[in-house]
Amino acid sequence: MIQTTTAAFLAILITCFTFLYSPITPKSSYHSLFISGSLSSNNSISRHLHTLTRRPHVAGSSANSDAAAYVLSIFTSSNLQSRITPYHVALTYPVSRSLTLTPSPSSPPVHFNLQQETYPGDPYADVSAEVLPTFHAFAKSGDVTGDVVYVNYGRVEDYKTLKKMGVNVSGAIVLARYGEIYRGSIVQIAQEEGAVGALVYSDRKNYGGGRGGRWFPEDKWLPPSGVQVGTVYNGVGDPTTPGWASSEECERLSDEEMDKGGDLPLIPSLPISGADGETILRAVGGRVADDDWQGSGDAPTYRVGPGPGVVHLSYNGKQVLEKIENVIGVIEGEEEPDRFVILGNHRDAWTFGAVDPNSGTAALLEIAQRLGKLQEKGWKPRRTIILCNWDAEEYGLIGSTEWVEENRDMLASKAIAYLNVDSAVHGPGFWASATPQLDELIKKAAQQVEDPDNSSQTLYQAWVGSSSSPIVGRLGSGNSDFAAFVQYIGIPSADMTFGKGYPVYHSMYDDYVWMEKFGDPFFHRHVAVASLWGLIALWLADTELLPFDYTSYALELEKYMKNLEVEISDSNINLAPLFKSIEELKIAATLINNQRKEIEENYVRPSMSKKNCFKVREVNDRLMMAERAFTDQDGLFGRSWYKHLIYGPSTNDVYGSKSFPGVDEAVARAKRLKTAESWKFVQHEVWRVARAVRHATKVINGELT
Amino acid sequence: MIQTTTAAFLAILITCFTFLYSPITPKSSYHSLFISGSLSSNNSISRHLHTLTRRPHVAGSSANSDAAAYVLSIFTSSNLQSRITPYHVALTYPVSRSLTLTPSPSSPPVHFNLQQETYPGDPYADVSAEVLPTFHAFAKSGDVTGDVVYVNYGRVEDYKTLKKMGVNVSGAIVLARYGEIYRGSIVQIAQEEGAVGALVYSDRKNYGGGRGGRWFPEDKWLPPSGVQVGTVYNGVGDPTTPGWASSEECERLSDEEMDKGGDLPLIPSLPISGADGETILRAVGGRVADDDWQGSGDAPTYRVGPGPGVVHLSYNGKQVLEKIENVIGVIEGEEEPDRFVILGNHRDAWTFGAVDPNSGTAALLEIAQRLGKLQEKGWKPRRTIILCNWDAEEYGLIGSTEWVEENRDMLASKAIAYLNVDSAVHGPGFWASATPQLDELIKKAAQQVEDPDNSSQTLYQAWVGSSSSPIVGRLGSGNSDFAAFVQYIGIPSADMTFGKGYPVYHSMYDDYVWMEKFGDPFFHRHVAVASLWGLIALWLADTELLPFDYTSYALELEKYMKNLEVEISDSNINLAPLFKSIEELKIAATLINNQRKEIEENYVRPSMSKKNCFKVREVNDRLMMAERAFTDQDGLFGRSWYKHLIYGPSTNDVYGSKSFPGVDEAVARAKRLKTAESWKFVQHEVWRVARAVRHATKVINGELT
Repeated sequence: MIQTTTAAFLAILITCFTFLYSPITPKSSYHSLFISGSLSSNNSISRHLHTLTRRPHVAGSSANSDAAAYVLSIFTSSNLQSRITPYHVALTYPVSRSLTLTPSPSSPPVHFNLQQETYPGDPYADVSAEVLPTFHAFAKSGDVTGDVVYVNYGRVEDYKTLKKMGVNVSGAIVLARYGEIYRGSIVQIAQEEGAVGALVYSDRKNYGGGRGGRWFPEDKWLPPSGVQVGTVYNGVGDPTTPGWASSEECERLSDEEMDKGGDLPLIPSLPISGADGETILRAVGGRVADDDWQGSGDAPTYRVGPGPGVVHLSYNGKQVLEKIENVIGVIEGEEEPDRFVILGNHRDAWTFGAVDPNSGTAALLEIAQRLGKLQEKGWKPRRTIILCNWDAEEYGLIGSTEWVEENRDMLASKAIAYLNVDSAVHGPGFWASATPQLDELIKKAAQQVEDPDNSSQTLYQAWVGSSSSPIVGRLGSGNSDFAAFVQYIGIPSADMTFGKGYPVYHSMYDDYVWMEKFGDPFFHRHVAVASLWGLIALWLADTELLPFDYTSYALELEKYMKNLEVEISDSNINLAPLFKSIEELKIAATLINNQRKEIEENYVRPSMSKKNCFKVREVNDRLMMAERAFTDQDGLFGRSWYKHLIYGPSTNDVYGSKSFPGVDEAVARAKRLKTAESWKFVQHEVWRVARAVRHATKVINGELT
Repeated sequence: MIQTTTAAFLAILITCFTFLYSPITPKSSYHSLFISGSLSSNNSISRHLHTLTRRPHVAGSSANSDAAAYVLSIFTSSNLQSRITPYHVALTYPVSRSLTLTPSPSSPPVHFNLQQETYPGDPYADVSAEVLPTFHAFAKSGDVTGDVVYVNYGRVEDYKTLKKMGVNVSGAIVLARYGEIYRGSIVQIAQEEGAVGALVYSDRKNYGGGRGGRWFPEDKWLPPSGVQVGTVYNGVGDPTTPGWASSEECERLSDEEMDKGGDLPLIPSLPISGADGETILRAVGGRVADDDWQGSGDAPTYRVGPGPGVVHLSYNGKQVLEKIENVIGVIEGEEEPDRFVILGNHRDAWTFGAVDPNSGTAALLEIAQRLGKLQEKGWKPRRTIILCNWDAEEYGLIGSTEWVEENRDMLASKAIAYLNVDSAVHGPGFWASATPQLDELIKKAAQQVEDPDNSSQTLYQAWVGSSSSPIVGRLGSGNSDFAAFVQYIGIPSADMTFGKGYPVYHSMYDDYVWMEKFGDPFFHRHVAVASLWGLIALWLADTELLPFDYTSYALELEKYMKNLEVEISDSNINLAPLFKSIEELKIAATLINNQRKEIEENYVRPSMSKKNCFKVREVNDRLMMAERAFTDQDGLFGRSWYKHLIYGPSTNDVYGSKSFPGVDEAVARAKRLKTAESWKFVQHEVWRVARAVRHATKVINGELT
């Protein structure tokens, strides 16, 4: 499965030539070598993935510790200074669950077995017993009974629709389907609406391939017994140590204090299969749900209830303090060891984790090995490169968050960028999200990497498709390990992947077979992610003047402001301060771009005196630190851990990324309350954002008032 | 009045020699020249002071704007890049006041004229009309009548004593004397105790020279009509813009929001003279106060009341938005322009300000001129030196705080140190306060400067006196402009002065005559402050490796911990985390000291390659940033602007400096409430400090986990 193409062959030739005839090999030659076919290997990536996914390896398990040892061994053998950084954090495991449906008073109860089924010839049948029973991490233990109400995707607007239909969920057990918002938000909203329990199922329409669909192992779709497990914790990091690192002996909140905090659910919940969901739906009467609430063509007609079906849900979980293990590998910078380019991916998986997250881990190991080979050839990075393999991401971004909290002061003053890859490959189609000063860099790098699905074009060409410029997503969501880096510290960050979503997500079927059959049969997408991810890191680590462009940032902010303007057009909110601050940022961004060009032309190339080295550092520090200025020590109102005022999660969907999250929330509140005071608070939040933008401008200009 | 001594003459000789025979003049020669007699001049300092104090120049007045123009002109003519940085802030001025005493129901009322008297031959008699009527800045306007209760210094413990005597101040007007705590705290405590108004007088015992004393202009003491005016605001910075800069058009709190904030008094108050205080005390009956509550020998016997004297207090102030002007002068660093050594002093004065603050301003101008001369001789600092002349300090550290809030991101990552001098000279005797990593540096500098009161010894010898090492104070207080630098950002800082307190403080008599007669007749103390202050700045600006010593910090922390141990010996609080964190800091401090030595010996001297310049910067950044790690984004409980967990003001006395202020407050609360929960909160605060110390250790070590 070695990837060889004409383009790759040419790259090798050019690289060899460069090495032979340069007395000092320029960094760019190493960068070309890094993405050349001579160093990359879909074969070794697939072997990494196969090894990592042999057994289920949830956080805190010995299998995950074995996986950590494997990562450590690859890091070490690739000449990285490597270590395991442990934390002791709260995790939950299921002890017992039971679910019974009484379709009507007259009918016998249905006892669900809650098992995901293996299939004939399943190579993982033996170890499938090691898969945890299906559950929601951090679900409340409890025993509840109630009429079933079907609530569609469980969003705030779905409950509004139900209210219009005269349906109240108070005292009921809601049945919601996965697919639109974060499951922790589904449970939290149900709780706020008065439900006593929540069941969340994977509808065939979204996950099963629809009418007449076939499923894994015949097709990529989720089998009828497949269940999406996952956490329902609405916070970030170990819930027992909010804002500080979970070292072995440290202060911890009591259960009571955690319950008060509001990030842990107070009602029991359970994820269930599509088949079980459909069985329950057949027992729900009442009014017929809207068309967009219905299932696939051959599904029964969905009604909203309540009842007559009554569900008895019992869940008992245990919360334990477990050791988790981040694996850290470092190549120290030759010239600027105290400037960090950080690459991160998590290792823990709900089951086998072939897509989520170990496709990313395999790519990370590939990068480690390629960097090891570059080192053998004499390359040393200018700045320090740090490879991080996080633990317990699935429970609430715990491994990365504890590490960031522990090292916050150093990261705040020394981290150039954080580059995240969670699942590297879900399927075809490249996606990237970033803080906007990285947009151009990512696009430029994508122009250097071959499209894994069509070797006659670049990844950029595939990505951009028919539009003039590819869409770059933003990092306000709480759905992967960039959260602490962006939203807590304010570090320029990116997140990349192939494909967006996949049906067997967080189920027992996310295994190597699925990946080889449906996700990335030739592992070329994995190779492309490793190339792109590593190339961006190399550029950030080696380029004398940081390739950050804040004009992109200013344009993005302008866009958000215009959206906001429409959103609040019928209010008296004054957006002038925000407008002015963005205009100033634009000017500053142009100015520093010109300064960079000037330095590049006049100073860097001919010689590098002591004075020039500080001059370069000075400009770089302004570029690096401007992102920090978008954070505010007070954080978002009522969610003070989130310090970033430009990007943060939606309050009603932790996986939803918001721009101006504080303003957004205040506007929603004001529209609900319609009071002068609530609108005044919107104005306050607008001022806060304007001030943050002004701070960023000042940092970019580098001039004290 | 030119200062010439043998030592100074020798210094000149050595300096001249050095300049003649060195191809590149070493920085140390410039430093010697800086403190030599050839550059320093008591004559020019006295002229600066005379010019600055010609008229009263309260913040917001045109006289203070004239003073700003004078400072700017000296900065500019000394070859500093100079500018005025304005803010628009809330200030208050008195509109009308009246105070009437009815000694008993049968006696006629006494109307106080509330005037400070001039004396025959007073050169400032003409301009004395420009002195604001005596008042408390930010006092609540109101008209109140009540029995008088004498409350000694108005401390919490004084009210405890009163309660033991059966005296309640509810509904009363309290009469407190100045001298132990901040006047804003006197008023706040009175308000909390239920008083409807507060009068604060200067007792002869403390300010008038006691029995049979003579007063200004015959002696240094406050005349009987003298009044100490001042602010009673309990916050820091413009109260309308908490946490952000008061630019001309910016968000501002409403009066209602400010009242809710709790930092502005809600009862009227007035400062009064010793004579008026004594008149009122004669009308106070009830039980005789304790001995330590009494006045000087010839004073009447003080009784606590309540009544029979009844006081009618009417105060009407106006709050206005006024432009204030910070004057900023910069000498850009030649090698590290983005590292700042900042010197600050305020300019605004309640009256003439000869001691407070313009003795410091005169010293600052002297430094500007000496640095101008060094520049003429070819010196350029390695790092940027910034001279700041603050406005509106007297109202609540407003000019410095707004500037720090506006520039917080840059200061947080680029400021090496802040060196404050408020009043340079109150009288004899040197005092210094600092964050502990600067202790040794200050001592070393004091060994280079001549004792202004005895030319046969150094300032250090005079300072150390009979003890083995001089006592260095700490910077938790809110009584001068270092507050925002230390307590909000966490910048290593120092504060220096000659003399501690002086009787005519904040009265009309703080003028040039007083200074020339009693404060510093030969202006040699002013010269000494300029030499020491400037020398420390030069060392910090020019020394390749920063002379910060964190072993001093660790020893100080250990001392505080031992005090705390005694304080809570009868509780179950576990101090082990704190103990451990301090031990780790000790090790880190020793390690980095050794690293610095090693670099000095091996790298710096012979040559300075690109790699070495970053190595030096790396160590310096660790030394600079460690102080920041003592701050916490959440700040002190209920006082979140105060981010520093090691040094902060006492809640019951803003002028009182506390170590571990969060713990201190929690302990006081727990001892009062005696609940398990309140003690648990003490433990939480201990954990927070321990974590801050651990963060500092990590920054010093410079190693990510």
